[in-house]
Amino acid sequence: MQKIFLAIACGALSVLASLPASADEGMWTYHDFPSQAVAEKFGVRIDQTWLDRVRLGTVRLAGCTASFVSPNGLILTNHHCIESCLAELSTQTDDLIAAGFLASDRGKERRCETQIADVLVGMVNITSQVDAAVTGKSSQDANDARKQTLTQIEQSCETNSQKDRKTGPLKCQTVNLYNGGQYWLYQYKRYTDIRLVFAPERDIAAFGGDPDNFQFPRWCLDMGVLRAYENGKPAKTPNHLSINFDGPAANELVFVSGHPGSTDRLLTVAQLETQRDVELPRWLLRAAELRGRYVQYGKGNAEAARTVEDQLNGLENSIKVRRRQLDALLDDELLASKRAAEQALRDAVAADPQLSQSIGDPWAEIETAQSAYRAMHLPLTFIENGAGWGGRLAGIARLLVRAADERAKPNTERLREYTDAALPRIEQQLAAALPVYPEIEIIRLTFGLERMREWLGPDHEIVRKLLSKESPDELAQRLVNGTKLGDPETRLALWNGGKAAITSADDPLIEFARAVEPAARALRQRYEDEVEAPVEAASEKIARARFASLGTSVYPDATFTLRLNYGTVQGWSENGVAVEPFTQLSRLFERATGAEPFKVPASWERAKATLDMSTRFNLATNNDIVGGNSGSALINAKGEVVGLIFDGNINSISGAYWFDTELNRAVAVDTTIIREALRKVYDAKALATEMGLR
Amino acid sequence: MQKIFLAIACGALSVLASLPASADEGMWTYHDFPSQAVAEKFGVRIDQTWLDRVRLGTVRLAGCTASFVSPNGLILTNHHCIESCLAELSTQTDDLIAAGFLASDRGKERRCETQIADVLVGMVNITSQVDAAVTGKSSQDANDARKQTLTQIEQSCETNSQKDRKTGPLKCQTVNLYNGGQYWLYQYKRYTDIRLVFAPERDIAAFGGDPDNFQFPRWCLDMGVLRAYENGKPAKTPNHLSINFDGPAANELVFVSGHPGSTDRLLTVAQLETQRDVELPRWLLRAAELRGRYVQYGKGNAEAARTVEDQLNGLENSIKVRRRQLDALLDDELLASKRAAEQALRDAVAADPQLSQSIGDPWAEIETAQSAYRAMHLPLTFIENGAGWGGRLAGIARLLVRAADERAKPNTERLREYTDAALPRIEQQLAAALPVYPEIEIIRLTFGLERMREWLGPDHEIVRKLLSKESPDELAQRLVNGTKLGDPETRLALWNGGKAAITSADDPLIEFARAVEPAARALRQRYEDEVEAPVEAASEKIARARFASLGTSVYPDATFTLRLNYGTVQGWSENGVAVEPFTQLSRLFERATGAEPFKVPASWERAKATLDMSTRFNLATNNDIVGGNSGSALINAKGEVVGLIFDGNINSISGAYWFDTELNRAVAVDTTIIREALRKVYDAKALATEMGLR
Repeated sequence: MQKIFLAIACGALSVLASLPASADEGMWTYHDFPSQAVAEKFGVRIDQTWLDRVRLGTVRLAGCTASFVSPNGLILTNHHCIESCLAELSTQTDDLIAAGFLASDRGKERRCETQIADVLVGMVNITSQVDAAVTGKSSQDANDARKQTLTQIEQSCETNSQKDRKTGPLKCQTVNLYNGGQYWLYQYKRYTDIRLVFAPERDIAAFGGDPDNFQFPRWCLDMGVLRAYENGKPAKTPNHLSINFDGPAANELVFVSGHPGSTDRLLTVAQLETQRDVELPRWLLRAAELRGRYVQYGKGNAEAARTVEDQLNGLENSIKVRRRQLDALLDDELLASKRAAEQALRDAVAADPQLSQSIGDPWAEIETAQSAYRAMHLPLTFIENGAGWGGRLAGIARLLVRAADERAKPNTERLREYTDAALPRIEQQLAAALPVYPEIEIIRLTFGLERMREWLGPDHEIVRKLLSKESPDELAQRLVNGTKLGDPETRLALWNGGKAAITSADDPLIEFARAVEPAARALRQRYEDEVEAPVEAASEKIARARFASLGTSVYPDATFTLRLNYGTVQGWSENGVAVEPFTQLSRLFERATGAEPFKVPASWERAKATLDMSTRFNLATNNDIVGGNSGSALINAKGEVVGLIFDGNINSISGAYWFDTELNRAVAVDTTIIREALRKVYDAKALATEMGLR
Repeated sequence: MQKIFLAIACGALSVLASLPASADEGMWTYHDFPSQAVAEKFGVRIDQTWLDRVRLGTVRLAGCTASFVSPNGLILTNHHCIESCLAELSTQTDDLIAAGFLASDRGKERRCETQIADVLVGMVNITSQVDAAVTGKSSQDANDARKQTLTQIEQSCETNSQKDRKTGPLKCQTVNLYNGGQYWLYQYKRYTDIRLVFAPERDIAAFGGDPDNFQFPRWCLDMGVLRAYENGKPAKTPNHLSINFDGPAANELVFVSGHPGSTDRLLTVAQLETQRDVELPRWLLRAAELRGRYVQYGKGNAEAARTVEDQLNGLENSIKVRRRQLDALLDDELLASKRAAEQALRDAVAADPQLSQSIGDPWAEIETAQSAYRAMHLPLTFIENGAGWGGRLAGIARLLVRAADERAKPNTERLREYTDAALPRIEQQLAAALPVYPEIEIIRLTFGLERMREWLGPDHEIVRKLLSKESPDELAQRLVNGTKLGDPETRLALWNGGKAAITSADDPLIEFARAVEPAARALRQRYEDEVEAPVEAASEKIARARFASLGTSVYPDATFTLRLNYGTVQGWSENGVAVEPFTQLSRLFERATGAEPFKVPASWERAKATLDMSTRFNLATNNDIVGGNSGSALINAKGEVVGLIFDGNINSISGAYWFDTELNRAVAVDTTIIREALRKVYDAKALATEMGLR
């Protein structure tokens, strides 16, 4: 499981059913956690103190979750959550992904330039403000007004926090919950100086590689340790979590605090059909081909393999996820349940004349918007959303070109990704001196151009414009070899130079992005007006209908914001065969073939004789998680860390659409193997001590 | 469009509708051609003489169609139908695909070692013999008895023909029409010495390449010329067709005589859903990745690009076809129509107590078989059907290992692909000294092993057996680099040595195939018993129900056997924009970018000033065709060749499931551009004269 594109939350399947009881389903917000249900079922009291403590010990990374595990800013997360950082810090002769890393002292901790760490310190319900701004407007005007309001709220929150001695500067982000049913302002303390402390070797962190991804039983030490710095010193983090190195017991109540990325449990059938018929098949076809190009490139030589590994891993993870999501949507029974639940809600609305009159038929409105979306999906995907270009450098070019126009506008009139609140993060990324691999950039760009020509056709206006005299190969090579955008200084100069600098730039990739921009802008506008606006308006109405039936006794879809859920340590039955909840170290060595990705690293072979072979390695629980939860602590009733979530089983992927009580399982690293590894394999005394290991 | 995996015929959509009238739908057999409908609609009389003449002038190649166009064995077909031969005859310094080929005299014509040419000379209805053999048996016993009967009929036909002075030796093949509704014995005269006469350059034969494939308007001189030889001399072919070099007129009545490969218009909804949910998505994902590997490999250097081109083209063609087939099946309206038609037939059965009692519920039987098929689809695909190994050499190893067992059995007890009637063709292919490219073999084999491990899981028995100590890369390299199966002598020695030779062989690929064989055999048996047998039995019952309602006024699904259909030259309306039926030469030059695949070859640039720019190039018709029809002559009412079918438009791909009168169009080369090219570009006087050009 990885940080990219996964999905879960308020099962449309269960939308009119009673609250989950035996099923420990639900990605609950911290402001609506069902403590009473937990008390009734498990006899465990989760009070506000417990909630606050765990919340403040939970960290959001770029695309992942983590926890503070020492008072000095130490952050525990997954290896696969820091793999990009390891890749960025690696060179041809020093491959940190392969070899692992352990800072011998704090001075040797190395900065992950694009990493951040956010802690959620405040939550404010702003639904009424948003409602007031949009009421009585057409869906397009409402869409604009909604965005302006959200931008304004974020801006004043950030501005005010600058002057607030108690909080200090905050990162303020608005959140849409229940697909427009609620709006919240979430306030974060953000750390931007994050450094690498420890990573095991890839061969043990990801033992089994892609073949084992989303499988269980497993044997992965998928852990990584970072540290947050402030003003050049380790951050003070008194609200850290404690680690219990004895791990959890079978059937023990466990919690997962983290940031599930995205689920689609509340979508209408029309929206799900768009995913099934259009989005998923097209994405999968393109991704599978790109995977083939990466794999073949990586077989060329060791350096190619090293440089492409991080991107390939991410891609393979996403392919596995979306393939299973497509399988789920092709299951006619699942779709029939969704249809029945939708009909039940529509019937409930019809039975309430007042509600019925006030919301009309939002399902039909969404269906109409889906038709519009299907009709524009190909050009939108290739031209605006980047499938037709692609690669890091082309992405930077597009960002610079568009930002030059956007930043010239008043803050509330900008596209939301270029508001003042978003700029510091963009600048951090532009300034990061990350390695650029021109051959991989050329692969990505050539691939994008070739497929854009295939899918839009050689006679499409934009294809003719870009490829009138050059082949995709020739164009990609000229652009990548000619651009200076790999250099942070050049990027920042164009960023700071604004519109004038962009207009006069003769960098070939900037010229390319300028050529694409008018068509891309037009598509974005069409999308916002014909799809986004009516879907937002209709979804808010459906949310009102749902609240009328159920109140907030259901949970919102995942939105990469902080959630807490509960479950128990347990296996499941796969085709009639019982899968035990724990794996043991001994089987790791039995299962190894000596060839990657089933190779045990030399450090473990050396330590083998000293290891306790009965040590628990990985475990399964029935917590309701999804991508973005990677790196989340598995927490016991006392609030101690007893495991480290890093994956789900194969049945967890349909969690995008509904939670399957019988089969959906989360997969975690047991803290007992972390203890064994730190002590006997890595001899990491200082680190172990700081993590509370005596 | 290409020779691989396409699909069409008796629209289940129209199964209970009246005969197509305005729609020129239908892939008619020569023994049931609706001459009366043609006479009524077009006032043209198609009599038995016309039918016999056209049939005997039509040729079946390996996977394609062609026509005799001179009394001396000259064969006209598509360039893409002879691309494999061009690839086989090419070397690093002499690339016939790129440069084209023109034999300066007959002595320079070069043999295509694996090509064959069949002419259909006899058709015998054997339905009653097959019925007699299976009646009263369980579906599994009936399945065995059916195959034994078919093998026996083929065998005696071939044996008898050896002694028949009039016909000479015949190739005898049984054909299943109407999904078990009829069985026929088709008798062919087979030519096995086929030589290359002419091919234009790839850049004009496939102008627009994959981006333009299945598109129209087009500008492709997709032609190739072969010659059949007998006893080392050009074959005497008095029954050839004449070419009319003035091409057809708009709206003119035209016929296509050829061998449509496969359609699924008569399948049940349960079978279509299996394609939609299981077969197509999984195939597409694997094919897209393999495409990526091939593309990336081909970018390495010119020789890699040359050697991978033929396989890549075939793969890209299949991807485009199956992608659109999946789109068609994801169209809920199409499936709803199929469901309605199926229900109507079921209602008709229910209304007839006698019929109802005799056939029971074959639709439910097929549904049950589909569940069994879905459950075994992954291991069957990877282990028995070769997705887990792959490549030419591994295919040969498997063939040798299996044939050694099969040939030891009596003829009627063998798997059908190893009966005596099938052996000469296998021997021809084993003996062909085709080039082998180890790097491509390694790519294929590695890919198969990697994906088998991914899809079956690293702990699957066969995966553990093959990959217990080696990675897919290591294993594939050892097998390909160590095998001698690239050498025809080695292959033939193992073939002739039979079981003893295979058992004692220490060739690593033979050892590999031996290791896979037990699991593969077991899966094949399970498939035949649990899927094939009940589906065959149930399909025969459905065919009986259909005949009871409609007789043979409908046409059977395509089976790569000879069919004739009629239509008219016409364009269509695409999203409200009229597409004209003809393209002109002038636009070819305007559309060229100078970069492949939009590059006009030097020969055409040189001749440009002399060419008549208003010459018609390609054209569209509403004939009902599908893959396998590639290379078919487009024939006017007089029986003259006026064009050369080479593709369909993008809407033709859903022709696998139904014929869309408004949008489905066939695409052909106009004979006028063939005249212009032979005269002015290629200066091919002798060839032009032999083809009847004065």
